[in-house]
Amino acid sequence: MGVQIGVLGGGQLGRMLALAGYPLGLGFRFFDTAPEAPAGQLAELVVGDYADEEALARFAEGLSLLTYEFENVPLAAVARLAQSLPVYPPPGALEVAQDRLAEKTFFQGLGIPTPLFYPVQTHNDLLDGLERTGWPALLKTRRMGYDGKGQRLLRSPADLEAAWAQLGGQPLILEAFVPFERELSILAVRSTRGQVAFYPLVENHHEKGILRKSLAPAPATSARLQHQAEELARRVMERLDYVGVLAIELFEMEGVLWANEMAPRVHNSGHWTLEGAETSQFENHLRAILGLPLGSTAPRGRAAMLNLIGQRPEFARVLEIPGAHLHWYGKEVRPGRKVGHVTLRADTPEVLQADLRRLEAVLAETKD
Amino acid sequence: MGVQIGVLGGGQLGRMLALAGYPLGLGFRFFDTAPEAPAGQLAELVVGDYADEEALARFAEGLSLLTYEFENVPLAAVARLAQSLPVYPPPGALEVAQDRLAEKTFFQGLGIPTPLFYPVQTHNDLLDGLERTGWPALLKTRRMGYDGKGQRLLRSPADLEAAWAQLGGQPLILEAFVPFERELSILAVRSTRGQVAFYPLVENHHEKGILRKSLAPAPATSARLQHQAEELARRVMERLDYVGVLAIELFEMEGVLWANEMAPRVHNSGHWTLEGAETSQFENHLRAILGLPLGSTAPRGRAAMLNLIGQRPEFARVLEIPGAHLHWYGKEVRPGRKVGHVTLRADTPEVLQADLRRLEAVLAETKD
Repeated sequence: MGVQIGVLGGGQLGRMLALAGYPLGLGFRFFDTAPEAPAGQLAELVVGDYADEEALARFAEGLSLLTYEFENVPLAAVARLAQSLPVYPPPGALEVAQDRLAEKTFFQGLGIPTPLFYPVQTHNDLLDGLERTGWPALLKTRRMGYDGKGQRLLRSPADLEAAWAQLGGQPLILEAFVPFERELSILAVRSTRGQVAFYPLVENHHEKGILRKSLAPAPATSARLQHQAEELARRVMERLDYVGVLAIELFEMEGVLWANEMAPRVHNSGHWTLEGAETSQFENHLRAILGLPLGSTAPRGRAAMLNLIGQRPEFARVLEIPGAHLHWYGKEVRPGRKVGHVTLRADTPEVLQADLRRLEAVLAETKD
Repeated sequence: MGVQIGVLGGGQLGRMLALAGYPLGLGFRFFDTAPEAPAGQLAELVVGDYADEEALARFAEGLSLLTYEFENVPLAAVARLAQSLPVYPPPGALEVAQDRLAEKTFFQGLGIPTPLFYPVQTHNDLLDGLERTGWPALLKTRRMGYDGKGQRLLRSPADLEAAWAQLGGQPLILEAFVPFERELSILAVRSTRGQVAFYPLVENHHEKGILRKSLAPAPATSARLQHQAEELARRVMERLDYVGVLAIELFEMEGVLWANEMAPRVHNSGHWTLEGAETSQFENHLRAILGLPLGSTAPRGRAAMLNLIGQRPEFARVLEIPGAHLHWYGKEVRPGRKVGHVTLRADTPEVLQADLRRLEAVLAETKD
């Protein structure tokens, strides 16, 4: 066997990394705390706790290099593994992305527009912060938040005490609410050789804090907006000496892009690239960390990606839609859990819209 | 876990079946005589001899259904497994495809043009046959021939005794040599529900009897020729009550298609569909045997597929070509062995030709 890639986290992102890497002749080994992690269905899986040095050592043995598929992997584990293995993206990016305060401070330092924010440790900090942000505002945990978890919207003083009761007592951040027109994301990639590439902007739609739908390329997007996103991502990557795929979630407001958060990994809003771009985000992440030339990020027609959240539609109903591509992650279906996604690909926006209406009708039948 | 698919043969075709099936939530188990079979790098592999009943039973346990990725799997093993499992494509197709005499007789019986042929058991049969076919003619073993193995071209009486010395003593077939203009293939698929679909004709180029290059869709092909190929494949599939992907190798001569041979499985000349068609042959084979709706077989731009035969090019040189998609099978490189392929995809024939020249130059550097 040739190059063996270790991946921290064995979820669907890891699984799709392996599926993209096998055709390049790569081998994969995953580390996860859960024995049922879906990457284990198609690659070696080491199950253990991130504090378990013996398990980490067993995982690391014989690996060529290390990457990760979720950003909440403990830094101490990454630091330990980095002593003997190259780690991409660089742990510094992980450190920034794990803490909303560090992340927003980082954006601010690069001159990238980001919502006004204020660190909150005490109830008094919260009151001080609200004087700056005004209402509404978002109160969030600094760490471990994802898919809308660990955050509360404060619409008026009436929401204040319930939010504090839920979130108080841990490091928090208060953010001004940006009355954005839409949510976009930019997927960027940078290789160990410094080569960079950008996918077209994606328009994202959330439901209950979870990504539900992405349209790619984002409709009605100017070259100027794409350029703004690329330059912003380029600055982030260069400052971090970044390697791999990076996703930045953005707000569009009056022609300006605001950075909301970033993920130092392949990202749900990039799943459309599997069928909708010449090279997928998964393959380009691997090319980047291996120092191989990056593949073309050009779109191939138009794509829409719908997440399957807590539902298993009838596969036949999905697959009879022309241009539908099903990705089932091999996970048990539970309410609110991402268990798969469907990408629709079409040559024209009209066909895409027709397919999308049809798919949404099929998904509505089995929705949780 | 859901549906578990058993695959007889664990070569690259099986490997690519699994890569196409994992996103559909399928599980895979392979059976192969070789412990290093490449599908074993990404799925469970049972190693055994096809005559080993115990190994076959172990392989079959818990499977939902059975398919195969090469057509020389012993019929007795398939018959044994078919007692407890659905087997697709049907064993009858395997029986026809395993014997060149049965195959050509089958084509003839359907009124499909095929080279004049004559069964040869004895030296006298050979002389009789040559009176019918004339010169040149091809002498082939009836069974186990592939990639140009087990056949000799008889250009003149001078070639006769050497060919007989090499091949005589086993069931043979003598075939008239068809002075064809080019070799094409049609990939067809039929599901358990009788749904059929056809990919566009592919133009194939061989070197030393091994497929070296496929162009898809085949250049300069009329709708009439495509229709001819589809109707021919449809007749074959209906007669065999076929399920799965079927490949038929064709000769084009003066606007008429002649059937040369068929493969009851996914086929090397269909590898371009991974990037060059809306749905790959691998996914459509799985959809067909599972009774799911077939995916669109429409091409996406133009594609060229080059086999990597006994050579490992420098990956970076291949991947820096725009639109190049590398498929490395995880096999040891040996002379004459298919160890991978590269598909080039482009939106126009001109770009495809430019990329092709570049790829051929890169491959020439490390050619065996």
